[in-house]
Amino acid sequence: MDERQPASRASLYRSWPRYEAADKGFRNYWYPAIESRKLGKKPMAVKVVGEPILLMRDGDKVRALHDRCPHRGVPLSAGRNEFPGTISCIYHGWTYRLADGELCAALTDGPDSPICGKAVVRVKTYPVEERANIIWVYVGDQPAPPIEEDVPEEFLAEDAVVIPMIELRKGDWRYAMENAVDEAHARYLHRKTPFAFFRLFPAYQTDVQMVPSEDGKWLRRLSKPVFGPQNYPGVGTWPRDGFWRKAGGQVIVGKARLPGVFYVGHKNWQDFQFFTPVDEQHHLMCQIAVRRTKGLGALWWKLRVWSYIQLFHRIMLNRWEDGFIVEAMDCPPERLFRPDVAIVAWRRWCDLHARGLDGERAAKAEAEAEDGGASVASGDAASSQQASKAELT
Amino acid sequence: MDERQPASRASLYRSWPRYEAADKGFRNYWYPAIESRKLGKKPMAVKVVGEPILLMRDGDKVRALHDRCPHRGVPLSAGRNEFPGTISCIYHGWTYRLADGELCAALTDGPDSPICGKAVVRVKTYPVEERANIIWVYVGDQPAPPIEEDVPEEFLAEDAVVIPMIELRKGDWRYAMENAVDEAHARYLHRKTPFAFFRLFPAYQTDVQMVPSEDGKWLRRLSKPVFGPQNYPGVGTWPRDGFWRKAGGQVIVGKARLPGVFYVGHKNWQDFQFFTPVDEQHHLMCQIAVRRTKGLGALWWKLRVWSYIQLFHRIMLNRWEDGFIVEAMDCPPERLFRPDVAIVAWRRWCDLHARGLDGERAAKAEAEAEDGGASVASGDAASSQQASKAELT
Amino acid sequence: MDERQPASRASLYRSWPRYEAADKGFRNYWYPAIESRKLGKKPMAVKVVGEPILLMRDGDKVRALHDRCPHRGVPLSAGRNEFPGTISCIYHGWTYRLADGELCAALTDGPDSPICGKAVVRVKTYPVEERANIIWVYVGDQPAPPIEEDVPEEFLAEDAVVIPMIELRKGDWRYAMENAVDEAHARYLHRKTPFAFFRLFPAYQTDVQMVPSEDGKWLRRLSKPVFGPQNYPGVGTWPRDGFWRKAGGQVIVGKARLPGVFYVGHKNWQDFQFFTPVDEQHHLMCQIAVRRTKGLGALWWKLRVWSYIQLFHRIMLNRWEDGFIVEAMDCPPERLFRPDVAIVAWRRWCDLHARGLDGERAAKAEAEAEDGGASVASGDAASSQQASKAELT
Ligand code: FES
Ligand code: FES
Ligand code: FES
Repeated sequence: MDERQPASRASLYRSWPRYEAADKGFRNYWYPAIESRKLGKKPMAVKVVGEPILLMRDGDKVRALHDRCPHRGVPLSAGRNEFPGTISCIYHGWTYRLADGELCAALTDGPDSPICGKAVVRVKTYPVEERANIIWVYVGDQPAPPIEEDVPEEFLAEDAVVIPMIELRKGDWRYAMENAVDEAHARYLHRKTPFAFFRLFPAYQTDVQMVPSEDGKWLRRLSKPVFGPQNYPGVGTWPRDGFWRKAGGQVIVGKARLPGVFYVGHKNWQDFQFFTPVDEQHHLMCQIAVRRTKGLGALWWKLRVWSYIQLFHRIMLNRWEDGFIVEAMDCPPERLFRPDVAIVAWRRWCDLHARGLDGERAAKAEAEAEDGGASVASGDAASSQQASKAELT
Repeated sequence: MDERQPASRASLYRSWPRYEAADKGFRNYWYPAIESRKLGKKPMAVKVVGEPILLMRDGDKVRALHDRCPHRGVPLSAGRNEFPGTISCIYHGWTYRLADGELCAALTDGPDSPICGKAVVRVKTYPVEERANIIWVYVGDQPAPPIEEDVPEEFLAEDAVVIPMIELRKGDWRYAMENAVDEAHARYLHRKTPFAFFRLFPAYQTDVQMVPSEDGKWLRRLSKPVFGPQNYPGVGTWPRDGFWRKAGGQVIVGKARLPGVFYVGHKNWQDFQFFTPVDEQHHLMCQIAVRRTKGLGALWWKLRVWSYIQLFHRIMLNRWEDGFIVEAMDCPPERLFRPDVAIVAWRRWCDLHARGLDGERAAKAEAEAEDGGASVASGDAASSQQASKAELT
Repeated sequence: MDERQPASRASLYRSWPRYEAADKGFRNYWYPAIESRKLGKKPMAVKVVGEPILLMRDGDKVRALHDRCPHRGVPLSAGRNEFPGTISCIYHGWTYRLADGELCAALTDGPDSPICGKAVVRVKTYPVEERANIIWVYVGDQPAPPIEEDVPEEFLAEDAVVIPMIELRKGDWRYAMENAVDEAHARYLHRKTPFAFFRLFPAYQTDVQMVPSEDGKWLRRLSKPVFGPQNYPGVGTWPRDGFWRKAGGQVIVGKARLPGVFYVGHKNWQDFQFFTPVDEQHHLMCQIAVRRTKGLGALWWKLRVWSYIQLFHRIMLNRWEDGFIVEAMDCPPERLFRPDVAIVAWRRWCDLHARGLDGERAAKAEAEAEDGGASVASGDAASSQQASKAELT
């Protein structure tokens, strides 16, 4: 069999229409939207999965409303908390109940205003929860599942100390998520990042696979790292790392999850990255550091996150290096290589498992996927490896 | 009759096609373009109703020409006043007579240039007048009426001291004008503006009507203000103003006029607001303060405008509060309430009375308006009030 | 014959479809892209004729590659020179041979990566040469001719001291080039430039013609200057230059050449202007000063260029005056006058002679041109003058 594949084969393989349509992200999920410590009684404006949302505290509750007054289209987040449990639009004082978005007063039309309570002027509310120092919003058309469906259980352990940093970034959320799923880039893009100075990096990895977890929530990335200098024919020896690189050398576990979550397991802490879609050209980069610890240990952990991890991981490595790439990418078209089996598997996984498919359509999609030989994402890791070899070059 | 109106009824009511088409404003009107004191012999570039216009003084005349050289499209406002009564384009020295736009010399083609005087290279001129410290330009296709048709007579009284401030603002001119016509917003948006600190504001008003003036030029806004704290069921008491609010308490007269003028009558001065359309996304906010006074009184009046009125009215209230709203509005769609009868009446008024309709079309529009029950704008204030109750909720 | 021409005649005359289509410039030419002294071993990103190009030195060679990694679309100019003679993409270390663009290693896929050497991942390379302190790139679809075809011979003389200054400018490259071809503007736009303070400028010129050079490469601009104050009927006397204007008074030779080059012959130096198209809205303004001199003379020449010529010619006159115009032009439409015969001739010249026409199409275009009476560009200067008189007013 000729190793060069005609382009037509390759395009056969690339078939993830639902993923391609998700330029504003997948609906019907809980997404992290803002750090708890940043939200008070003052309304804040965020955008999630294309929808403008007002977030604010109301007593011990957090509230989320569509951030647009039905009257004349002014953002409600510019409004005032005139009465307990309400938001009054800054323009004419239409006053909405935060709990259900109902118009309960139109101040400038008097107490007898007939418009109050009408359905056409009710503001959409969003399910919203606070967990693990993060405000989570559910954007979707179907009833919200319990938040525990979407918040990783690591966040909810009693002794978990969760420290999030959320920032707006330019770029399609899928490029950002794929950058996390993509193991190969760490070997090159991040090799010279300050954090990695003393660390032994593999040159490359073989046998990349994505294997579903038993509970079906995660797609785990497996591979075999190859360390030490290699001889690349016709090119030379690489990497030429200094003798002082000693630490590391272990495999770092990575796994992906819908709607756009990546987990990196470090020795004694976990790095979760949530990619919350904002609109077609922006996403929220949510870097969430988690460690199980208590008392003095928790204090020490916070100190470590806000100094070392903040600077070396979140800013230098993630914002400056990965963030630069996500903005600079100009594709499609693309030409994938073997390690990209991880990306392809992630795309197919989304295509098959993202919420919002009814049973019939889902079954049809599964069938098509099997016909197309796209076993990568259907859970059979061994054959997926074969597929990737055949197609990804 | 059920008070909740189906959406279809509401949309029936909303029918002002000419107003909707006027995203660059109405043609065939005199518009204020720049303060007299800002215009000298140096050409200035403005844009009015979508047309780029050069303004300059030429002896004791003011001139207005289309700001584009027919030769190669360079703005004439970059040119030089090379000879009396002309403007020479900066690029090749085509020299136009300011009075009529005729090409009277093409300097770099010599005195015998055959292109001079040709009709295809004549630059359009605009009727332009100076009145009441303001330069007015007429943009239209029909012959200009006398400027007194469009300049309010208050400006022309011998002892009127007229002090304009004109600035470019973002936003559709119609939102800005509607914001002026809209009485209700003053009760809420402006309640906390510094100017209003000592002032008693109504909580709301009832019986909003727009009544044509006898001369047919103005649409006067009437309503009955209700003062003092009100009890809004299920919400609470509002307003909760401090005891020191004492001043005010009288009705402030407001009236609107084509092509986009709003008048607010204060106790001893008048505040005219002209909304000069620039393009689809910008307008000139022209705030014009008028008072009849002489001698020392005039001096004192100027001082008052340039200090107190400038800061509290024009900047804090109008630029920061109204200007913020006009930029922030994101509509359609909209859902109107009772006080918006004023806005609806204004739109219909424009639709029926804006210049440029020949007699037959105007009669047809009147008839349609009456059929549609849109008596709001047809002058019958009593029935308009009924209409508003039925439709605007 | 009536001197006023109907518009339809004029439009007949204006027919240069290939020129009109060249909004990103003409392909199949060598273009100046960057000054030699600015290019080192670090990759630089430029854009020429719409194509993003990486330029870098590789030993004693200069290399030019399409500036986009076929893998995932990251600019190669962000990459590293990891091995001699290669560039490695910053993202995953795909390593391309600079000489031919072949993928010779995919570092993060190991030494046995099967994707290496595949045609679909080869990066396009561009012919690139260094001559006369300038890096030249060839962008096209046909095989590159020897660079001597496109680099003026004046640059290549042994004792030529060539000093380029290249900068990115806003505006269509054709407006910039036409501005150079256009003699008339110098009489007006540049009359008050500091450089011209002591110089006698003609008031205008007659009998403008463009005459092809014997070798067919250049289109030479001829005209008869008229000096001294003129009396423009109904307007006045112009120019009214000061008595101190003494220098100058001679004819300055100008000539144009494909793909967008203008030459101005000063008394003892030559000013070449190359207009390298970047995209539809930008061009590189390449101002190249040339003088034949040696030893101390060369030193003195460099000093003169980097002080006087840099400031008065390149910045004040060319950047501030011409650059302003090219950005400010808003055309079509246009209405040409007699001196514009030079511009019309240039457009027709491009239409007939720009590379990329096969023999048959070229012959057809010639024939059409003759039919249309557009002898301006066909080389017959006398008749072109007639044509211009008839049509250009
Ligand atoms: S726009 Fe919100 S109350 Fe009017
Ligand atoms: S563009 Fe105005 S004179 Fe040429
Ligand atoms: S994008 Fe260039 S190596 Fe991956």
